[in-house]
Amino acid sequence: MATIVQKYGGTSVGSPERIKSVARRVLETQQAGNKVVVVVSAMSGVTDSLIKLSREVSDQPSEREMDVLLSTGEQTSTALLAMALQGMGAKAVSLTGAQAGIVTDGAHTKAKIFNITPGQIQDHLDGGAVVIVAGFQGQTAQGAITTLGRGGSDLTAIALAGALKADKCEICTDVDGVYTCDPRIVPDARKIDTISYEEMLEMASSGSKIMQSRSVEFASKFDVLFEVRSSFNQNPGTIVKEETPGMEDVVIRGVSIERNQAKITIEGVPDKTGTAAKIFNALAAAHVVVDVIVQTAPHEGKTDISFTTNKDELEKAGPALEAVAAGIGARGVTQTAGVAKLSVVGIGMRTHSGVAAKLFDLLATGGFNIQMISTSEIKIAVILDEDSIAEAAKAVHAGFGLAG
Amino acid sequence: MATIVQKYGGTSVGSPERIKSVARRVLETQQAGNKVVVVVSAMSGVTDSLIKLSREVSDQPSEREMDVLLSTGEQTSTALLAMALQGMGAKAVSLTGAQAGIVTDGAHTKAKIFNITPGQIQDHLDGGAVVIVAGFQGQTAQGAITTLGRGGSDLTAIALAGALKADKCEICTDVDGVYTCDPRIVPDARKIDTISYEEMLEMASSGSKIMQSRSVEFASKFDVLFEVRSSFNQNPGTIVKEETPGMEDVVIRGVSIERNQAKITIEGVPDKTGTAAKIFNALAAAHVVVDVIVQTAPHEGKTDISFTTNKDELEKAGPALEAVAAGIGARGVTQTAGVAKLSVVGIGMRTHSGVAAKLFDLLATGGFNIQMISTSEIKIAVILDEDSIAEAAKAVHAGFGLAG
Repeated sequence: MATIVQKYGGTSVGSPERIKSVARRVLETQQAGNKVVVVVSAMSGVTDSLIKLSREVSDQPSEREMDVLLSTGEQTSTALLAMALQGMGAKAVSLTGAQAGIVTDGAHTKAKIFNITPGQIQDHLDGGAVVIVAGFQGQTAQGAITTLGRGGSDLTAIALAGALKADKCEICTDVDGVYTCDPRIVPDARKIDTISYEEMLEMASSGSKIMQSRSVEFASKFDVLFEVRSSFNQNPGTIVKEETPGMEDVVIRGVSIERNQAKITIEGVPDKTGTAAKIFNALAAAHVVVDVIVQTAPHEGKTDISFTTNKDELEKAGPALEAVAAGIGARGVTQTAGVAKLSVVGIGMRTHSGVAAKLFDLLATGGFNIQMISTSEIKIAVILDEDSIAEAAKAVHAGFGLAG
Repeated sequence: MATIVQKYGGTSVGSPERIKSVARRVLETQQAGNKVVVVVSAMSGVTDSLIKLSREVSDQPSEREMDVLLSTGEQTSTALLAMALQGMGAKAVSLTGAQAGIVTDGAHTKAKIFNITPGQIQDHLDGGAVVIVAGFQGQTAQGAITTLGRGGSDLTAIALAGALKADKCEICTDVDGVYTCDPRIVPDARKIDTISYEEMLEMASSGSKIMQSRSVEFASKFDVLFEVRSSFNQNPGTIVKEETPGMEDVVIRGVSIERNQAKITIEGVPDKTGTAAKIFNALAAAHVVVDVIVQTAPHEGKTDISFTTNKDELEKAGPALEAVAAGIGARGVTQTAGVAKLSVVGIGMRTHSGVAAKLFDLLATGGFNIQMISTSEIKIAVILDEDSIAEAAKAVHAGFGLAG
């Protein structure tokens, strides 16, 4: 008898009707001869309503109490799904994160999972019940309620699959799987059948927002194979797993784009040890998340340092940089919004040479001007004008032969 | 330093504004030099919404899952009140029933409290925090979430006050205290300063719906003195405590009325051992809650048995009685809706004779026809025509000198 962990997000359980539809899917999975553990998020909209309520009673609600408040959202979903299953004649039982044995550190609103003791889950599974676990939450060793932060329910599912040594972990969401590019931008994008953890991570960090990086990292670390698939149909999704030799035959797995980027350049930075550190320490202190960094070769003892960040970070970055630029004797700071990032990802890059050249070629042919370049072992990212990003994605996607 | 337990019901925490207003009251209580434990209900309307949701996913939601679902309502209130207090600069911490150490039996939706180990509460109090506990809930020894049923938050407050050996327990509600009669019916009704547990119980069971009987019983059993008072003003309320000798000087503590009653008579019941048992066993099996029972003296081997019940129970009672009446050879069953119960309550009755006579006299003088009579040691209840109940209450209230 196989053990399957299924995770359903907020949209999938967003109404009583959808909860019943999830219940039917879960029941089918059990009736096919499996032990089933279901992880659910809060019904869509519920978490936002709770956050709004919290702002109405306090300007700065404490993180401990936010966790107590928000964790009720997932708890509600678990009870409703259990009821729906029972209404269909199934045996089902709901568990909070704490009851499921998920122990975390005490970093409220962004707790890390310490360990999982899934004894209660196992007992209920052995008794023939579907076990429904509240995603996104756990408790400290001292018994305080914690939440795991963004993407927390995916993490719960993957961690439980690992702890239970489950045969399968399905992340059921509102898309059919991971695509070679966003189908809203590139209509002939194909669903990817299999992708490695590393590729999935690079796709996630370059704008494909299906899952948070931390869940993929966790899966990779504990070698949990999972499938991203739709909650609303039975189509096979995308299997995410450890790299296998065959995977390298495909040079490029996908193209991802990220809009709303901004480019900042600190000009005329004296070419001295420690100046870059000063700049990026100042940005870190101002909680600015920096993405691509490029430094030009020094010329007459001066260099330009550019980086990209989300457009929304500009407000925080500006004042921090003005101060540090003056302190290190740089000439000035310029900001450009309206740029976007295009990345090609594939573990095949490691063994196939000429990928970067081909990418630059495709962009040049299409008349797209490259503003910055950044590469990793399995990814090449370029910064382009935001207005041209969709056309560039189409050209690159077609040029690498990814179209369906 | 005194320890005070305060309980606020759903109306008192029904909006962010009201939660902030409760927070101010709680803070004042703490600043007056007290350790404060607050028990809260779900915000008014929340429990009903959750029940509605449950009906949308299942016709017959299981009791275990109802408890998981409904307990989120109180948990939400605790977090919001803690945030509001913290926003005012106070130290505050919320606890679920389970975290507060409230252990119950496994009777979901109507669990009984087994014991309370308030170690966590005590630690937080010693650390200077206001401790906010979710009312109405606990957990089994095996860790399943349970709820305590109607009036559960009052019970939580009284049980915690007992376990903590609190100096005071305040049940803060939307009325100023317990009145000699419902002021909406008898405008010159007075607030009662002090009332015994026993009187409070009889008032509760005869229609004064401020508190459920079980909370008063619990307080009586563990000798927890409590005060019923308003959440919205600082007026002193009604102290409920063990009987003291002076209390008997007042013959009648109050008059309570209960509308929407129905009278059912099984006519011509053969006067044989066991027939009454058959009738009331049949009613119990149909889950009909019976109130006053009267049996006339037998005449020619036949007797009439009458009882009252809530009007809403008639639907269940009818079929059950038709069957049993035929089985025991009774002549037939008659039903009368449109009756109401008027009760006078007072421990003074034990030592003062003639109370019943005076009540009947007052009713006769006013032209109110008594349909049934039932008495206990400290209560006399009569069944009257519902249309005349308000006038009868005024006459009795005035006649016993209860008016302000």
